[in-house]
Formats: sequence, C-alpha cells, structure tokens
Amino acid sequence: MLWSNSFIPTLREVPAEAESVSHQLMLRAGLIRMLSAGIYSYLPLGLRVLDNIENIIQQEMNSAGAQELLLPALQTQELWQRSGRDKEIGEVMIRFTDRRGRKLCLGPTHEEVITELARTHIRSYKQLPLILYQIQTKFRDEIRPRFGVVRACEFIMKDAYSFDKDDKGLDKNYNLMLGAYQRIFKRMGLKFLTIEADPGVMGGKVSHEFMVPAKSGEDLEVGHIFKLGTKYTEALGARFLDDKGKLQPIIMGCYGIGVSRLIAAIIEQSHDEEGIIWPWEVAPFKVLIIPVDVTDKKMANEAAKIYARLSKENIESLLDDRDERAGVKFKDAELIGIPLEIIIGKEAFKNGKIELKRRRDKKVFFTDRKNLVKKIKQVMKDEAKP
Amino acid sequence: MLWSNSFIPTLREVPAEAESVSHQLMLRAGLIRMLSAGIYSYLPLGLRVLDNIENIIQQEMNSAGAQELLLPALQTQELWQRSGRDKEIGEVMIRFTDRRGRKLCLGPTHEEVITELARTHIRSYKQLPLILYQIQTKFRDEIRPRFGVVRACEFIMKDAYSFDKDDKGLDKNYNLMLGAYQRIFKRMGLKFLTIEADPGVMGGKVSHEFMVPAKSGEDLEVGHIFKLGTKYTEALGARFLDDKGKLQPIIMGCYGIGVSRLIAAIIEQSHDEEGIIWPWEVAPFKVLIIPVDVTDKKMANEAAKIYARLSKENIESLLDDRDERAGVKFKDAELIGIPLEIIIGKEAFKNGKIELKRRRDKKVFFTDRKNLVKKIKQVMKDEAKP
Repeated sequence: MLWSNSFIPTLREVPAEAESVSHQLMLRAGLIRMLSAGIYSYLPLGLRVLDNIENIIQQEMNSAGAQELLLPALQTQELWQRSGRDKEIGEVMIRFTDRRGRKLCLGPTHEEVITELARTHIRSYKQLPLILYQIQTKFRDEIRPRFGVVRACEFIMKDAYSFDKDDKGLDKNYNLMLGAYQRIFKRMGLKFLTIEADPGVMGGKVSHEFMVPAKSGEDLEVGHIFKLGTKYTEALGARFLDDKGKLQPIIMGCYGIGVSRLIAAIIEQSHDEEGIIWPWEVAPFKVLIIPVDVTDKKMANEAAKIYARLSKENIESLLDDRDERAGVKFKDAELIGIPLEIIIGKEAFKNGKIELKRRRDKKVFFTDRKNLVKKIKQVMKDEAKP
Repeated sequence: MLWSNSFIPTLREVPAEAESVSHQLMLRAGLIRMLSAGIYSYLPLGLRVLDNIENIIQQEMNSAGAQELLLPALQTQELWQRSGRDKEIGEVMIRFTDRRGRKLCLGPTHEEVITELARTHIRSYKQLPLILYQIQTKFRDEIRPRFGVVRACEFIMKDAYSFDKDDKGLDKNYNLMLGAYQRIFKRMGLKFLTIEADPGVMGGKVSHEFMVPAKSGEDLEVGHIFKLGTKYTEALGARFLDDKGKLQPIIMGCYGIGVSRLIAAIIEQSHDEEGIIWPWEVAPFKVLIIPVDVTDKKMANEAAKIYARLSKENIESLLDDRDERAGVKFKDAELIGIPLEIIIGKEAFKNGKIELKRRRDKKVFFTDRKNLVKKIKQVMKDEAKP
C-alpha cells in the first residue's frame, strides 16, 4: 500500500486520555480512535492487526476440529431467565424493549444461545463430540471503561463451546483447547502464564486463565477456559440419547479469547521508547519501504521498483511515498513498528547496496539489488520463528 | 471437512415460518437458524458463504483503492442530533441510556461516525481523495421482520464512504464504486439491474440502486450508492483547506451493500425444486464427495483417498462420510447445492471410472482415477466464468 493514499494518522504527542503504554501507542500509531469513552474505531492499520490475530485463531481452532459459526449479538432476556443468569449478570448487560414489546439484550457472552441451538439439534450420542466457535462483537455496559480496547463497552471475542457425552470427552476437548490456546499465544509472540482459576459467574468446576504479564503492571487476561459440565444444558434442557437409549444432559466446556484486547497485550510486551515492535505474524505490513527524499526521482523510482517486486512475491509492504522530511519518516517508522525497513538513501546509488533495518533491535543489513528478495525472505524466516 | 464431524442440520420439511424460497432453503440446508423473529445464527455452512461474499467485496473494494476499517456499532445519540437525523431516522434506531447516563444508540448506518472521523483528521486537500469502507453488523428495530435474513433486526452491511475536494472528484469515485459494484454482483453469479433512485433519508442529489429480480416477486435491493455532497460535512463541520488556503466542506459519497441479504438474493435466483445451486465463487465447498455406502470398506477408502488428494490441491471439499442410505445423501447433496459431486458407487470399481455430477444441470461426466484432479480443474475453470 502507498502511505500517501492511506489513512494512517500518526500523532507526535502522547494523548492525555491514555493511561497505559499500549493505549498511548495504539492512538499514536493510528490503530484506533475513540468515539466516546470505551467506544473505539479500528483504523486501517489496527484492522490489519486484528485480521492477522483472527486468522491465527481461526487456523488453530480449525485444526483442533472446531467449526466456526456466527451467533446473533441480539438475544432475548427470556433465555437468560431460563438459565438463571438474568439477575447474576447484573447491570453490565445492556437491555431494552423493542417496538414489538420484546425484551431483548446485547450478548456479553453466548452460553445461553449456543445451548439453545444444541438443545434443538443434538438428539443422539452419535452427534457428539462437537466444538463450535465464533469471532464476534460483544457489548458491556462498562461503568469505568479503561486502557483503550482492554476494558471497553464494545469488544471482539472468540468464544468456543464443546459438547460431549461424558466427562472423558470433556477432558479431551478441554486439553485440545488448552493446547490450541498455547499455540495461538506463542504464534503472537506473547509471553504468557497459564493459571488455574475460579470459574466465578460462568459456573463449572475447573477453569484456566491465560495471563499476559505487562511491564506497566496491568497484566491485559487474554483467555479463559471452563469445564462447565451440565450447568447450562440442565437449565435449558439440552439432552441427548446415550447408547443405551437413556436421556442425559450434554456436557459442556467454554473457551474464550479477548481478540481486540490481544492487540494491547502484544504492544505492552513488545515496544520500546520509540514505538511498537510488531511480532512477525501479527504485523500489519511485513516490510516498510522508505525513500528518504521522494522529490529525488532516482530514489522514488528505486522505491517503486522494490515495492512492485515485493508485491509480486506476495510480501505485504507499505511504501512511504509521502513528501515528508526523512526525520518525520523515520520517527513514524519506529512508531508504527513494521518488522523490516528498507531505506533508500543516497548510499543506495553510491555503492549499489540497499540498507535493511530490523525494527526489533535496529540491526542494519546491507544487500545488493539482485539478492534483495532472497535476503528479505531469509530475515522473514528468522523473524517468523515463535 | 468430514460431514460426520460437521454441524449441518438439514431439514426434510419446509419450515412453516418461512415465506420465501430463499428463507425456506436457508433453513432447510442448515445455513441459518432463528433465535427470535428477525434474529438469526449463521451455522457453519452459512458462515462459509458469508465469508466468500465478504472476500469478493473486499477484493473489489481494495482494488478500487478503498481502505477497510471497522467503526463501532455503539454510537452517541448526540452525534445524530448534530447531523439533524435524530428525529428523521425515527424509532427504527435502537436507543438506550447506559449506567454512566450516556444516551447511546446502535448504528443502523454510519455517515455520522465516519464524518466525525474525517472532521478530526482531514485538514488539507492533500489528504484527499479518500475512500474508507467497513463490513459490519448493523441493527434495526424492525417492526415486521420478514423473509429471514432479508428484513432482519441484525444484519451485515458493507458501507463505504468517499471524501473529495470537488464534484469532479466525487464523480470519479462514484463511477469507480459503480464499476466495483457491477463486478461484485457479476462474480456472485447474479442477474441484477442498476436503477436511478430517490436518495430519500440519506440525502444528496444522485443515487443508484442495485436490484436483484426474484421469481417469487420479492425483488431482495442488494446495493445502494449516493452522491451525498456536503449534507453531513456541513452539519458536522468537516472542512479542509483547499489549494488557495480557503476552508471548504468535504464532498462525500456513500456506498452500501446488504451483505447478509445477498445470500438470499443469490438463492432466489439460483435454485431448483431440489435445493440450492451455488454459483462457483460463493459455494461453501466446491466439491462434495459421496461414497454411496460407507460400510463398504473399498468405497470408504476410495472416498478418503480422493478427499486427501483434493485437500492437497487446495480444492475445498466436503466428504459425506455419514453412515446413511444413498437416497438420504443424494437428497442432502441436491439441497445444500455444492457445484460438483463425486459419486463413489460400485461402478467405480467395475470399470475403474469415477462419476462426477454437476449440480447446476445434473450433467454427469466420467473420468479415470489418474485424470480426476485435471478433470475437476477443467470443470472448475468453466464454472468460475461469471
């Protein structure tokens, strides 16, 4: 993509509204903008990171045998009365009455909706086990929204649900999900802890939390999995016929990831004084091409040529073709944190060498034009290692 | 994917709740399920179609130079008061007051939010032109939800917005979008009409509707584009400095596609007595492999081998490995409408020929094992032609 056609509004100053480092950097790098407290827009760069995170989650969920679906954000309050969580969830759930007089709510979570779906479609043990998941926008009436996308009123979650005929099946699926979660967070370059936790309002006996320690002390929980057992299936009457023809409640597990919150968690762990340092797999672009002076035709041409070459090789790159001073470009480059920079300056024509700079450690490499793609692919290979 | 592990709950009977053919077939083929009137879940097969539709839209939007972002569903009512549409939009907009006392609403459309974003970030003619778009869930308090996903309370839209410094720029972007829309609908296999229309509540002078005629008479508007002019930018004060240093209101266009509604439109135009006939690009799987009797080890093995071969070639296929009667499998195959079927029956072993059946016209082809992939790719190539 060409920077001059893009909507990447970077900021020099640290916005006053932002308390945490990740919140500051997400605003400064043009990833998000606030509409009102706890309500954010994802700008193009932020959405690219979000898409990369979602792709990793989808790949690992699908290889664990889970199937993706999409449940509605609108739910009936009646469903929550049937599960008994109507009062328990409290005022955090947004409720309203529609013009037809229906009492509706915006789902902060989807155990009730998925159990209702299972109740109407799972009849026999032959249909089990089953893991269903979705990536979806959730809503919370958050009284104190904080830290940008971390504690927001509107946020994106991945929620998965397993259905089994016995505890052995649940144990198997629970471990399958636990393994998938560890692969997911590793691929995102995160250092994380897996902790046994209290199931709380979700119910069930066993649960694990995935915590990402942050330097700022605001450790930014990114996943939580629960052995729910029969709490929801008994309340809503989701039963199956076992192999002896006896009706039994389906045994459930549920598995959540805070998708939008992960962006903040990654930044908390991966930044320096100058800005974000994107881990390879989530980076919005892999390469940033910086012609130092675009009014110099030789430099502009060289940059455009390299950009075309990388596009052909399917290496996602951003070309900073803005007519800005070199200092501004370098500062923005550090801020938005693309893993690899290609700097086209006067040197590129003096000795025929092209300068590559790795954002992570600012290490500089030189290569000739001919071997540029090969060199980039070699750096890519090293960087992609989790 | 293996059918036995999948959540594809097909129905024999026509559901009483469904009025239109597309609504009936979406329920019967296991694409959607209703939670409450106008509120639907997309099951795995339905979500795959939705993803394919979204991919086509994203490809065509990106090649027209538009950039994707994601705006919040939650909006402040205050923003609608400033644009003057607060009363005009009426009761169809869902409104509520949160615990902080903020008056919020669920966006049925996003002109206000995007104009506010432009107001705070566009300062100079140098930042123009700009086209931004999103694919997002919208909400309407629909008093009479009908035809399944066609008139629903929660639905998915693609909404794009162009920003220009003059009318000439707007004309150019408008035509760019018009061309992109025509490519999008063509790739989805739709016969459609482009009609000059009344801009209505959206405002502006010029608008075009994209209509998909349906046999049932419920023609299921899939796109609408508007030259908005300065209606929103003047109301919200979104201005830029022109090349003479004079403040001018930004000139806008907006461009909508009913994404979830498109599934119904496609089915209305592409079905027969037995079920759905998916056009190639939107089909949830391209090939359906049907071993006639999975208790016959030779057949099951042959089917599994072909499935593995197609997976290796990145041809998305569904293997109907269920222990069901051949009649049930064939009926389900016609119903869910995968473009190409591979039937593994006794004939496959008698004369070494494999039977391919094209869903569209039920035409049968035979091929030997060796040339199977080649033959499929040839059929694919023909089918993919819009």
